[in-house]
Amino acid sequence: MENYKEGFKRFLEYQLELKNISDASGVLYWDLSTIMPPKGVERRSEVIGYLSQMLFKIETSEEYGNLIYALYEHFDEMDDREKAMIKNAKKSLDFMRKIPEKEYLEYSTLVAGAETYWADARAKNDYEAFKPILEKIVNFNKKIAGYIGYEDTPYDALLDLYEPGATVKELDSVFKELRDGLVSLLSKIKESGVEIDNGILKGDYAIEPQKKYNIELAKRLGYDFERGAIAESAHPFSTNFGNNDVRITTAYSKEDPVTAMYSTIHETGHAIYEQNIPDDLTRTNIGGGVSMGIHESQSRFYENIVGRGKQFIEGEYPKLIEAFDGLKAYNAEELYRAINKVEPSLIRIDADELTYSLHIIIRYELEKMLINGDVNFDELPKLWAEKYTEYLGITPESFAEGVLQDVHWAGGMIGYFPSYALGNLYGAQMLYKGILRDLPNYDELIRSGQISEITKWLAANVHKYGGTYEPKVLIEKITGETLNAKYFLQYLNEKYSKIYNF
Amino acid sequence: MENYKEGFKRFLEYQLELKNISDASGVLYWDLSTIMPPKGVERRSEVIGYLSQMLFKIETSEEYGNLIYALYEHFDEMDDREKAMIKNAKKSLDFMRKIPEKEYLEYSTLVAGAETYWADARAKNDYEAFKPILEKIVNFNKKIAGYIGYEDTPYDALLDLYEPGATVKELDSVFKELRDGLVSLLSKIKESGVEIDNGILKGDYAIEPQKKYNIELAKRLGYDFERGAIAESAHPFSTNFGNNDVRITTAYSKEDPVTAMYSTIHETGHAIYEQNIPDDLTRTNIGGGVSMGIHESQSRFYENIVGRGKQFIEGEYPKLIEAFDGLKAYNAEELYRAINKVEPSLIRIDADELTYSLHIIIRYELEKMLINGDVNFDELPKLWAEKYTEYLGITPESFAEGVLQDVHWAGGMIGYFPSYALGNLYGAQMLYKGILRDLPNYDELIRSGQISEITKWLAANVHKYGGTYEPKVLIEKITGETLNAKYFLQYLNEKYSKIYNF
Repeated sequence: MENYKEGFKRFLEYQLELKNISDASGVLYWDLSTIMPPKGVERRSEVIGYLSQMLFKIETSEEYGNLIYALYEHFDEMDDREKAMIKNAKKSLDFMRKIPEKEYLEYSTLVAGAETYWADARAKNDYEAFKPILEKIVNFNKKIAGYIGYEDTPYDALLDLYEPGATVKELDSVFKELRDGLVSLLSKIKESGVEIDNGILKGDYAIEPQKKYNIELAKRLGYDFERGAIAESAHPFSTNFGNNDVRITTAYSKEDPVTAMYSTIHETGHAIYEQNIPDDLTRTNIGGGVSMGIHESQSRFYENIVGRGKQFIEGEYPKLIEAFDGLKAYNAEELYRAINKVEPSLIRIDADELTYSLHIIIRYELEKMLINGDVNFDELPKLWAEKYTEYLGITPESFAEGVLQDVHWAGGMIGYFPSYALGNLYGAQMLYKGILRDLPNYDELIRSGQISEITKWLAANVHKYGGTYEPKVLIEKITGETLNAKYFLQYLNEKYSKIYNF
Repeated sequence: MENYKEGFKRFLEYQLELKNISDASGVLYWDLSTIMPPKGVERRSEVIGYLSQMLFKIETSEEYGNLIYALYEHFDEMDDREKAMIKNAKKSLDFMRKIPEKEYLEYSTLVAGAETYWADARAKNDYEAFKPILEKIVNFNKKIAGYIGYEDTPYDALLDLYEPGATVKELDSVFKELRDGLVSLLSKIKESGVEIDNGILKGDYAIEPQKKYNIELAKRLGYDFERGAIAESAHPFSTNFGNNDVRITTAYSKEDPVTAMYSTIHETGHAIYEQNIPDDLTRTNIGGGVSMGIHESQSRFYENIVGRGKQFIEGEYPKLIEAFDGLKAYNAEELYRAINKVEPSLIRIDADELTYSLHIIIRYELEKMLINGDVNFDELPKLWAEKYTEYLGITPESFAEGVLQDVHWAGGMIGYFPSYALGNLYGAQMLYKGILRDLPNYDELIRSGQISEITKWLAANVHKYGGTYEPKVLIEKITGETLNAKYFLQYLNEKYSKIYNF
């Protein structure tokens, strides 16, 4: 290839074709999770499987492969966007070419069935039933790491699938600082003697007014309903089919309108990221959030830093008590404290803002050990329990509330968990080094409901790049610093020392 | 091909592949009509367009074509299902091969854009704006009829696209009998002097209770929610992705719960047909209702013969007044009469059971003239108005309530309208010659809410065949007679002579 521009045009056509198929699959998944009748599942799997095969066929075709490798030789001549696109395409291509098709198929079949076994094992609190499957999945991931290749340690290869550029070396250091800081904060909170009653958030709340409130709330955060929709699903998620059709789901409970509220804020954070992807990227493989970690930084920023912040709750208070009559009995300060109660718990998805990252660090430490063969599968639940006792001061009494609680491993997603904690770190670092620098009236903007100003900042500094810059590059571009735990710990210390008087 | 069985296996694989793509498209359409945000439309069109291209590519491939033609040579050796499958496939293949690709593309583009022009023209009551597009669409349909080929008259070729085997010769005779019978019944009703007030059905009815009522109603009719779902859309429709995922939509109005109720019954009739398709047909090209006319016979049977029948309304009465408080002021007889008020109207979709078919016959007569070149496009609105005056005794005063009222012509669907009237005829003929013969306690079954017994009969006599038998064959199989208008007229006469005392 003399000049790569012609080849790049052909590559963009391929991108659009792949995007067409994956958007179609995305709608099929959305439909499956929100409205599909239960007995539709078998046929739906066939259709989704067919579309996956089509994707696989295109990506493993001789012509596509040759094009990517030919273009890659011109990497240095490309602009940043082109580089990112070709790098992503090559990464995905390498992945499929390095793993023998037979093994890949075997693994896909294993993972496709594993969720059912896991759900069953969790329901029956039967670790032994899931253990052999977990062992197979971990062993496959070891092999996959070997096929992909790595410099230092196999877990790096897996990490890179979800958080490009992240390494064990870096995470070990950042997560150690984070873990020690969190354990220390937690002990201060315990010693403070301050007791918070978050039972005041519970009551009897009809679903329809909750739906109405959550729609208005998402609008106030800057979510565009001309390009979005909210539906209900068992587990809340966000998804998109290009930047003009970005959706979220919420799960409502009659006892508790606050969980749905923060779930909506969280998913809206993801969705606003996707709605702000520029038009000229949306049909490419960098036309979305760059990584799981940066995505979580957006959702967690809206959910925790903004949404669980004092200014937001004060600003939202009149609307909250109008929508939820039972909350009228408490003032904004009482609600703020109840919403931010810190309490070590066994279940990750129920964890508060402060202890949440400790759940992640436990999984990170165990995943590394599993991949390195430093723990055997019989001892895993014991080790899990010990880490909970050590970091959180509580000990699971069942597998269901211990090692069997998450679906991720059943889904083959080893290396995914760190993204959640990285999201917390990125968010705080952006806040301290970016947002407060550029918007010194941040508190006032939030209190007065001008959250769109914050959203604009995120759009201009994060969203507009789509997948152009790897997390490492992006975070340095915004903050001038590499990732570290100090800002998140500083943020938590400032917030919780006031709530818990230490 | 020595033995066709091997080739047929390959053909079934193709069927599944085509079904996978069309089911994916179907879900994309459903999503578009029920929840997609407005700005998602451009991207959605791209994705649907891509899937259509894929279908086209497979169906026009050398290998597929050769297979179909090779299999067709073994037609006489096949069983009924195989015959129907190969006949359908060949019909679709011939269609695509006979029409030059360039013209087909030109026509597709024209039709894709026409709906917007039509909606705009209707909103502005501007026939002149739509006339040139209508002319182009009609001329294309003339050409298409020529390419497809016909024995007697070009309109036969178009009819056959929607109602396989139907001909002008047959419809001319049946529709004449029907038209004369309806006009005569209508004049008896007018002369009866009986006045019915259907304003009693209007009121102020919240949407949520309507939703709840319609779900329960669909269940009572035999619609299986394990394999179905109801959503809202601007225009009600039913769709399916195999027999285990068959859905309907309803449009609710706060003024009028009865329209939504009968819309639900109508769509449920379509849906029950699709839910009852046997498992071994559902992944093939005969895995659905056989024709538009037979489909309408099911929906109209549930909606009108069952749903607007006296027994049904009496049986439903307690539930109706429980759901809709405002109806309590009237007894079942009063509601029955209000629901069955006959009143000539200008808009087809608002027409009552008796006058509805006259709207269809007018369109049928005009379509034939358009295709035969017996009317020019300037005169069309005048001719439309004259026919309304002649058959229904009322005259449209605008294009919007005349020739511009239906979307069908803008969608290129010339030859489709007759299906609606055929549905009425098939339904009544089945009732008189099949259901009453096999279920002499029909009235009692309906009154006591055992509609599932009727559904079982339909499943065993109609639904189980899927697309195996053409309408002509099917109706003879069930009733021992060819299609005629006498049973529908007899049914109407028995019903309306009691309501209008003639």
